[in-house]
Amino acid sequence: MIKLGIFYRVDYVEAAKFVLENIVKNFEVKHFTDSSLDFDEEKFSVDVNIVVGGDGTVLRTLKKVNTPVIGVKAGRLGFFSGYLLNEIDKLIQDLKDWNFIEDKRWTLRIETKKGTYFAINDAVIQKDVSQKILDLDVKITDGTFYYHADGLVISTPTGSSAYALALGGPIMLPNVEAFEITPMAPQFLANRSLVIPSNERIAVRSSEVANLIVDGDLVEQTNEFRIKKCNRTVIILRPKSYDFSTSIKEKIGYGRKILKNGL
Amino acid sequence: MIKLGIFYRVDYVEAAKFVLENIVKNFEVKHFTDSSLDFDEEKFSVDVNIVVGGDGTVLRTLKKVNTPVIGVKAGRLGFFSGYLLNEIDKLIQDLKDWNFIEDKRWTLRIETKKGTYFAINDAVIQKDVSQKILDLDVKITDGTFYYHADGLVISTPTGSSAYALALGGPIMLPNVEAFEITPMAPQFLANRSLVIPSNERIAVRSSEVANLIVDGDLVEQTNEFRIKKCNRTVIILRPKSYDFSTSIKEKIGYGRKILKNGL
Repeated sequence: MIKLGIFYRVDYVEAAKFVLENIVKNFEVKHFTDSSLDFDEEKFSVDVNIVVGGDGTVLRTLKKVNTPVIGVKAGRLGFFSGYLLNEIDKLIQDLKDWNFIEDKRWTLRIETKKGTYFAINDAVIQKDVSQKILDLDVKITDGTFYYHADGLVISTPTGSSAYALALGGPIMLPNVEAFEITPMAPQFLANRSLVIPSNERIAVRSSEVANLIVDGDLVEQTNEFRIKKCNRTVIILRPKSYDFSTSIKEKIGYGRKILKNGL
Repeated sequence: MIKLGIFYRVDYVEAAKFVLENIVKNFEVKHFTDSSLDFDEEKFSVDVNIVVGGDGTVLRTLKKVNTPVIGVKAGRLGFFSGYLLNEIDKLIQDLKDWNFIEDKRWTLRIETKKGTYFAINDAVIQKDVSQKILDLDVKITDGTFYYHADGLVISTPTGSSAYALALGGPIMLPNVEAFEITPMAPQFLANRSLVIPSNERIAVRSSEVANLIVDGDLVEQTNEFRIKKCNRTVIILRPKSYDFSTSIKEKIGYGRKILKNGL
């Protein structure tokens, strides 16, 4: 019998209870956990985790567990979700048949003098409001690029539709084997993203100690860090009908069909 | 003994003669050819071709030959060049020692109902000035993206620093295994480039017959074509000191060091 865990965003607790009530009739539910709390996966043996919440909740859950995750969401689908709340019957059937697409995403490993971190979306170095513009060196095998900017975002393809997109970067399909480096508010017009192969090692050095933000969480302040592809992958289970282009179209409207006579 | 050919842009003929005079003392020169003319490589057996001219001249030469190419240029270095005209002695020494970086670039194959083409930089579908905005469908394995735009540029990493860059696309390192799709003057704000793996097959369909432009040359008018990675690679020989980041910095100023007190 399939063993499940349920994570939920605390303000989605009613939706999460609805999922629990339906799931528990069919499967063994091992835990029902507020996604903002610490979680020790080793205490529970589950095959899959259901996450009730938005993309942020799924992201945080993916970082806590090594087992696959299924996103369930009210309203519109997000990048990380697979099922809407009103598709609970379909989810139960798909669980019974184990009828999913395994959407594997590769991740980043970030090393500083103090520690190592892993990122699904991105690592960001960013100055405080009170700080001067940073001088940033980005060293790769091929040479060094220099930026005079508020910061830099180094993202996976998964992260290309997150903060990097908001800064003007391209949309990368999830299975592209490349990092994207996007400057934040660069001086002197050099605002394009740089796309570099995922087998590169990136060393970033800043003229001043600044904030290091990993997947949206401030982790430390530093003036240097290194990034490479991480050997850890995360797995999102999707319905067979899933494709990335639909999620791009639904979530941000990119590449959607425009009607001939109006919107 | 190394056998060479020399191609030149017709308005660089004096520079080309200077190269010829120096090269011919040391190597067997098999041909001295205006790069705008047709060329049958099978008539000549050469190890390498020297191209005297800018990036456009090197691009056209790379499409005519299967042997490696070395770009020689007056003034500033281009993306495809390796030696400045005043570095002729270094070039001769590097030829004697065969002391080069082999810079291999992958290419595109474009298929229409009428023919097949191969591109080093890009394939472009673009409306005429007199035509209405095109409705374009871009189909990949993952789904279909729709654009309402003047056209689309589908480029290799090599082409990412050419026309796609002028349209706002990212800079891709040459060894990234991905295509870039960039819309031209898209309606409804969807102007981001899409980066997709190089093992994809792309099918483009237009609401109207429009211009198909391959590496800058208008090749035919069509309303549909297909693109995939081509099994042909082109080889540019570079001095050992070459790296891509320097050419990006020299040619377009991207990622150049900014001095603290002024430019």
